[in-house]
Amino acid sequence: MTPAQLVHAIKANRNFLCVGLDTAINLIPPHLGATPQAIIEFNKGIIDATKEHCVSYKINTAFYEAMGAKGWDIIGETLEYIPDTHFTIADAKRGDIGNTSSQYAKTFFETFNFDSVTVAPYMGEDSIRPFLEYENKVTIVLGLTSNKGAFDFQYQLIDGEPLYIKVIKKVAKWGTKDNLMFVVGATKAPDLAIIRQHVPDHFLLIPGVGAQGGSLEEVTQYGLNKECGLLVNLSRAVIYASNGEDYKEAAEKVVIQYGQQMKTLLTNTLL
Amino acid sequence: MTPAQLVHAIKANRNFLCVGLDTAINLIPPHLGATPQAIIEFNKGIIDATKEHCVSYKINTAFYEAMGAKGWDIIGETLEYIPDTHFTIADAKRGDIGNTSSQYAKTFFETFNFDSVTVAPYMGEDSIRPFLEYENKVTIVLGLTSNKGAFDFQYQLIDGEPLYIKVIKKVAKWGTKDNLMFVVGATKAPDLAIIRQHVPDHFLLIPGVGAQGGSLEEVTQYGLNKECGLLVNLSRAVIYASNGEDYKEAAEKVVIQYGQQMKTLLTNTLL
Repeated sequence: MTPAQLVHAIKANRNFLCVGLDTAINLIPPHLGATPQAIIEFNKGIIDATKEHCVSYKINTAFYEAMGAKGWDIIGETLEYIPDTHFTIADAKRGDIGNTSSQYAKTFFETFNFDSVTVAPYMGEDSIRPFLEYENKVTIVLGLTSNKGAFDFQYQLIDGEPLYIKVIKKVAKWGTKDNLMFVVGATKAPDLAIIRQHVPDHFLLIPGVGAQGGSLEEVTQYGLNKECGLLVNLSRAVIYASNGEDYKEAAEKVVIQYGQQMKTLLTNTLL
Repeated sequence: MTPAQLVHAIKANRNFLCVGLDTAINLIPPHLGATPQAIIEFNKGIIDATKEHCVSYKINTAFYEAMGAKGWDIIGETLEYIPDTHFTIADAKRGDIGNTSSQYAKTFFETFNFDSVTVAPYMGEDSIRPFLEYENKVTIVLGLTSNKGAFDFQYQLIDGEPLYIKVIKKVAKWGTKDNLMFVVGATKAPDLAIIRQHVPDHFLLIPGVGAQGGSLEEVTQYGLNKECGLLVNLSRAVIYASNGEDYKEAAEKVVIQYGQQMKTLLTNTLL
């Protein structure tokens, strides 16, 4: 799915929710067991329960890598189960010198067929360029992250501007709104207004709503653009809404609730 | 293997060479074939041919991930084949919010039993802390990288100091010389002198000698400390020294040549 198709899905559903599949074997409901097959069953259950109320899924690779090669297979099986109507994100935060980044791009865009992958900016242009070379794929670069550690370097001032603004401004020149998005943490929602001055048209992937305390209203207030331009990710708040046999119903309840909020927020705008 | 044991190995062998296993299926000698088994055979051949002339191996995860789950198995099989006498590095450049970084740390320190892993600093302390919590394991944080893109952000000035110096100074406070190293590209060898003012005791992992043009003499001149404190990585220059049936002999010839240079350089110092 391309960003243009994502915009279409968002407008048709009045929904900009991404569900994050940060699935850990020790956190899924005990009745499912603790095998690789249990993880697949859990992910499929979550997808079944949420697909009518979200437009995207994000697979956090760390949780699968920790299982070794089996985890890598589970990524593939989960990705295949996600309907084509949904935008898929490999949340992998890769980045290396050019010839190595080419291998990471191949991993997520060819070996797997993700629509997009998250990438870290520290190593600069040649670490990001190999991802951008793929047609109809999206590179999602870390701008401002939702964690406490964001204050260590991302807010450091360079010529009076925070590093994260420098990153967003410079990286924006390497791609277009159609092949480039940015990660911007919801826990710093007012900073979205500053970011929007520099990248009015790009999509922003927003983690940090839910378990990390960010507010959907604030994110919408500061971050919305004329094509929506926002994908709000919820992981733990959805997938671990219940630890019991009702985990699917509990997850559905959470996404319905956020979905209704999103519908209201979008209806109050021109979308 | 711990950094203390690495120092012992370096002094005993008068050698601080790391061989990088950036093994791509389309770059290995054609006579080996193009199967996962061929990659394993190639890696084992390279290890056999080089182990007497190096003290460390670095597995670049990108090249294996591009093969999917099979590649993940090859990482495991290659790692098991590396002798216990050698320091092992997962060159993975991971980094995410705390609970996700914990999963990456688990991946490389438990699921695999690497001695160390490379980590990106952009997301700050809580993205690095979960790696540092492992006893007898080493976290290798990107400081100054060897690629052209290093100039995009790493050299940007914050309070008159480049970002990479800020990163190295701040990260150094989160760990010790026993659980923390830094990546410093050889292509910027004179900057090693500045880095040594801030982290005189830490080990530095030095990519960029060989294919990327860095000089071993310069690296040693500016970077050596009283325990050596350097691990110089060579990847393509060694493993792709020949594309023929003599690939092992060709690789051995290159590591012997660098090994002799290292012996001379270390003998000229107090080590």
